[in-house]
Amino acid sequence: MPDLTRTLEANGHLIDSGLMAAIMDTVILGGGDFEIVEFDIGRTNEDPSRLVINVSAPQQDRLDRLVGELHRLGCFAAQPPDATLKPAERDGSVKAGELVVCGYDGMRVVPEFKARDRHEFSFMSAEISSERKVELAVRDLARMMRQIVERKGKIVVVAGPVVVHTGGSDDLAVLIRTGYVHALLGGNAIAVHDIEHALYRTSLGVDLTTGRPVDAGHRNHMMAINAVRTAGGIRPAVESGLITSGVMYECVVNNVPFVLAGSLRDDGPLPETIMDLYAAQAAYTKAIEGADLVLMLASMLHAIATGNMLPASVITVCVDINPAVVTKLNDRGSGQALGIVTDVGLFLNLLAQELE
Amino acid sequence: MPDLTRTLEANGHLIDSGLMAAIMDTVILGGGDFEIVEFDIGRTNEDPSRLVINVSAPQQDRLDRLVGELHRLGCFAAQPPDATLKPAERDGSVKAGELVVCGYDGMRVVPEFKARDRHEFSFMSAEISSERKVELAVRDLARMMRQIVERKGKIVVVAGPVVVHTGGSDDLAVLIRTGYVHALLGGNAIAVHDIEHALYRTSLGVDLTTGRPVDAGHRNHMMAINAVRTAGGIRPAVESGLITSGVMYECVVNNVPFVLAGSLRDDGPLPETIMDLYAAQAAYTKAIEGADLVLMLASMLHAIATGNMLPASVITVCVDINPAVVTKLNDRGSGQALGIVTDVGLFLNLLAQELE
Amino acid sequence: MPDLTRTLEANGHLIDSGLMAAIMDTVILGGGDFEIVEFDIGRTNEDPSRLVINVSAPQQDRLDRLVGELHRLGCFAAQPPDATLKPAERDGSVKAGELVVCGYDGMRVVPEFKARDRHEFSFMSAEISSERKVELAVRDLARMMRQIVERKGKIVVVAGPVVVHTGGSDDLAVLIRTGYVHALLGGNAIAVHDIEHALYRTSLGVDLTTGRPVDAGHRNHMMAINAVRTAGGIRPAVESGLITSGVMYECVVNNVPFVLAGSLRDDGPLPETIMDLYAAQAAYTKAIEGADLVLMLASMLHAIATGNMLPASVITVCVDINPAVVTKLNDRGSGQALGIVTDVGLFLNLLAQELE
Amino acid sequence: MPDLTRTLEANGHLIDSGLMAAIMDTVILGGGDFEIVEFDIGRTNEDPSRLVINVSAPQQDRLDRLVGELHRLGCFAAQPPDATLKPAERDGSVKAGELVVCGYDGMRVVPEFKARDRHEFSFMSAEISSERKVELAVRDLARMMRQIVERKGKIVVVAGPVVVHTGGSDDLAVLIRTGYVHALLGGNAIAVHDIEHALYRTSLGVDLTTGRPVDAGHRNHMMAINAVRTAGGIRPAVESGLITSGVMYECVVNNVPFVLAGSLRDDGPLPETIMDLYAAQAAYTKAIEGADLVLMLASMLHAIATGNMLPASVITVCVDINPAVVTKLNDRGSGQALGIVTDVGLFLNLLAQELE
Repeated sequence: MPDLTRTLEANGHLIDSGLMAAIMDTVILGGGDFEIVEFDIGRTNEDPSRLVINVSAPQQDRLDRLVGELHRLGCFAAQPPDATLKPAERDGSVKAGELVVCGYDGMRVVPEFKARDRHEFSFMSAEISSERKVELAVRDLARMMRQIVERKGKIVVVAGPVVVHTGGSDDLAVLIRTGYVHALLGGNAIAVHDIEHALYRTSLGVDLTTGRPVDAGHRNHMMAINAVRTAGGIRPAVESGLITSGVMYECVVNNVPFVLAGSLRDDGPLPETIMDLYAAQAAYTKAIEGADLVLMLASMLHAIATGNMLPASVITVCVDINPAVVTKLNDRGSGQALGIVTDVGLFLNLLAQELE
Repeated sequence: MPDLTRTLEANGHLIDSGLMAAIMDTVILGGGDFEIVEFDIGRTNEDPSRLVINVSAPQQDRLDRLVGELHRLGCFAAQPPDATLKPAERDGSVKAGELVVCGYDGMRVVPEFKARDRHEFSFMSAEISSERKVELAVRDLARMMRQIVERKGKIVVVAGPVVVHTGGSDDLAVLIRTGYVHALLGGNAIAVHDIEHALYRTSLGVDLTTGRPVDAGHRNHMMAINAVRTAGGIRPAVESGLITSGVMYECVVNNVPFVLAGSLRDDGPLPETIMDLYAAQAAYTKAIEGADLVLMLASMLHAIATGNMLPASVITVCVDINPAVVTKLNDRGSGQALGIVTDVGLFLNLLAQELE
Repeated sequence: MPDLTRTLEANGHLIDSGLMAAIMDTVILGGGDFEIVEFDIGRTNEDPSRLVINVSAPQQDRLDRLVGELHRLGCFAAQPPDATLKPAERDGSVKAGELVVCGYDGMRVVPEFKARDRHEFSFMSAEISSERKVELAVRDLARMMRQIVERKGKIVVVAGPVVVHTGGSDDLAVLIRTGYVHALLGGNAIAVHDIEHALYRTSLGVDLTTGRPVDAGHRNHMMAINAVRTAGGIRPAVESGLITSGVMYECVVNNVPFVLAGSLRDDGPLPETIMDLYAAQAAYTKAIEGADLVLMLASMLHAIATGNMLPASVITVCVDINPAVVTKLNDRGSGQALGIVTDVGLFLNLLAQELE
Repeated sequence: MPDLTRTLEANGHLIDSGLMAAIMDTVILGGGDFEIVEFDIGRTNEDPSRLVINVSAPQQDRLDRLVGELHRLGCFAAQPPDATLKPAERDGSVKAGELVVCGYDGMRVVPEFKARDRHEFSFMSAEISSERKVELAVRDLARMMRQIVERKGKIVVVAGPVVVHTGGSDDLAVLIRTGYVHALLGGNAIAVHDIEHALYRTSLGVDLTTGRPVDAGHRNHMMAINAVRTAGGIRPAVESGLITSGVMYECVVNNVPFVLAGSLRDDGPLPETIMDLYAAQAAYTKAIEGADLVLMLASMLHAIATGNMLPASVITVCVDINPAVVTKLNDRGSGQALGIVTDVGLFLNLLAQELE
């Protein structure tokens, strides 16, 4: 009969990070049992706690699964065995023959936790709600952005076409020009509508100065696409003097890299839009490297894709008028995600004012 | 065998108001048939059209129903019979014995229609969408409000507690102080949270200056209620110097009438909150008398109730971050309803700036 | 100099209920400091934990506030002082002269907690989401309802008019007839549309058998109101044979008490609709007395009002197609709330099938 | 001075299709003027109308734009000039050198219109609402699907992963097996979760039989991807006996073509997922060729992409629990679009029952 008990350790801020409760929940809900061998609670807020726990289960496979789960919560064996490395059988996301760690042996996870009094920015503790005062979050976000810029950090903006429709693109252009954006991620549509706006002052045919649809305005977005295609791309269209303002213009003249990832619904994509998704994913991954803050503006698809690629340590701020989008993004597990449910055009307007 | 054909007339801008299509639809979908006896279309945009139409149906009751429906669309009989008046049988919304018109005979409805080039305010043609630039609607609304004030017209504001939570109450207070609000309608909650804010700078326990929940802040709203109850009401609380700022304060010192209608979910209502709904409906009806514009701010229940009481000729502007609320309000049949899907706090901020 | 430290105790399942983390958070975020004097963790899942903690703060008022907050989390002083009782100064929710407990001294709160392996009903752990299989929640809910009925418990249903519009009223009528509903709470609208359906087979003028609007159907709801008013009320209208089916009919013939609370937007209320909100609140309070389960069906206003009146120990199940409503209701602090985001008509259909 | 008036004609059901009002609106809002030279209204419901109209504008370019707009509404010149054909300058969606029609001359648009009494299916007139009885729409849709199958027509289903999460995949599998689906369009996620369900009975780690998360269930979707990759694809995984049930299984064994289009957020895509978007668009276009009905189930991205590719004559039925998605899809201009706001799992359950 095999030994169906394993002794595991964990340490850190186990209570305030919720790990202690999660460890105990995991064992019971996973059909196992626990006995606390040792628990030293930190006497003050600064002191870490330390746990030694015996975990048992009725079958070996259940115990193995439990231990796997507990590893993810930062538990580790006192004398860990070596990790197991095996070559990949065939090409996939990794190439055949590359070594891959299999199983949990020899691995240790250090879970993130939210320190209870270390929030640099009070708004980071704010719940997602449309029933909050947005100015405060904007003020704190502006402060954070200024600090990141001062210490030569990196801010990435992910933006959807609603930024243009709601009149926020002039403000986003200001942020780029004044050095607050170090990479811009989006899809075909934001670039198309930004350029439509730069060329014809409309977005989807609506004049953004008067709010009225213009004559035959529905043609403008296709005319913008054709104009850029004729010029050979966004960069040549800026360099030749065709495009003289807007988000894409500022990216080009300020050397801010941008990546436009294609999607199935794009029509007549711009030359810069990457329609090979592997290439688009690679370009996104490269663009977010080293990011300190990612600002996601009204763009569910691109924001979720970016979120999937980000390490949990990067601060993300997601702004959308639809609370479901904000919830979906904040549920993706990052410890430092803030959601703001508001009008993205007005938000950018306030942010640009605050940063000036 | 009865004559199952009726000859009806209609005139006005029948095509651009959609009435012509509605009349024909009504007959066919109601199981009848029509023959157009005469149709003089206006030759230019200014000329009205005139229609004479024979409507027939296979049974008398169906024909009667059809004629009833067509009356609502402005159709009328060439030689109308007298209206039928009967005394009400028992008390209800009217008192027993009062004369009530029964049936459609002798009645003529003049339907409203939207003139295609007479929009004083371009934004009134705007669809409901969160993907629009809000500044333009605010600018036009401010212009409309200024004109109404200049010609001594009447502006009514219906507001919910989200106005306070989102930091819009200082701006609404400015609008009241500067003469842009001539009656305020709401429920218990907006007054409670406005007074909580005036007394403790919090709304639902969140400090509106810092965005942080304050110690024991959840008690503040109950303390605000108790303070006002002890003072004997909002007006005495203002007059005694207890309340010195906010929406309710400005109403009191500027003699702007306010009506707070109770709802089932209110706790500890303020003395001014009317918990008898007949009395509340009567007070609302009186407050909106003669209104030129009703501005509905993040308050579904009170806005729908107000909408039910308004003649269709009053312009209504509904602001809410939830598009479903805006759709619900705009569907209530008024010809002059505008919906703006945005953050109500930022909206009021912009509106107050624009009106200064 | 006053002693700015207090020694408090707490015991129970402090970790898995999240209380331990909440206690520590409260002290730090409230600007205080703590020292853990003693912490005995339960060795196994069954054992409770015990905490003795010193809490200090820089000022007396801050310390008092902290202790107040900690009381709510179940902390108590080792030698508690007597409670302070004062007579109420004037009439409000309580009458002048009635004794009211003031402050926290001498009080002890026993917080609820969710046991990690004691869920009778697996679905109670389900998150709120429209991306879940509803049949499972229905199956478990039906099982719970059967058990409550078997042990002579009490089930209260709160329902809105959407129950009728979506075709769920026949199923709700079955639940009433077969003994699964012991009180029905709602507003004027559910009764009006249920009776419109009983009399004319329409709801808001739409034939629920064909899905088509009927001729002049918009008049039906007013005709239903008038018919009931003429009869003298819902009960006489059932007893006289006017109403022979539907939700209200089943309530009357099965002696299931119902309460219809008025709201500001009601027109022509039915005689049973209570337009005095104090009386309506009292009737609701009486109807929910002793409830084991409250099922809230597509009725935000009445559900929130009911939720405010319920002790936290009552299980509530809220069904609505709008996730925001479900979130709002579940946030109200009850430990036993389940939200189901789905189509309420289809939900009732499944539930009635499952209970047959 | 140029002649700034053009004489145009139009005919058909100009009033009930709304074209007459649209033509007049277009001229006035576009800054022009009109004079009605001739208007013969159909005397009965069957007769078409005929319009001759003079359109004038103050400048030539404005007049040209107006005429362009009116072309789209079915207006045409009495003696039309020849169409202008020019070769494309460079490769884009068309190849360089291919002839493209430029401008409106020589073109005539025949606008669709909704006949007022020709609706085969009553539900097609239903507004989008969550406050409707879904069974009726399902019954009519089932009838339509049966008729299409009888006359050897083509039904295309576009589906998202929520179909699996909500327990609808067994029902969709039945529809495929019984011949009601002739092509399936989706993304990587629906296939991954369907196969996760086929292999492990879970969807995103939740057991669809019990509704409980299973141990380590979050790994199941990655294990499903790896199993299919190892097998070499979905088809070989079915043929080798690895996958024995589900949506993808039924597609393979019943020779129903499926297309999985990639998106930026996909991880570890299945071998069949097309990550080159040009290829994915081409495959979608081919799959919908000749479709009579497209059923869009809880998949905004793929549904919008499909909608963009469809001629307006194809009937589309969009089912989603989020009304905003349904509105967005129905606004895309098709004359025959129906939106149903409901729970997609319950919807498929009802539809499969109705079709059996």
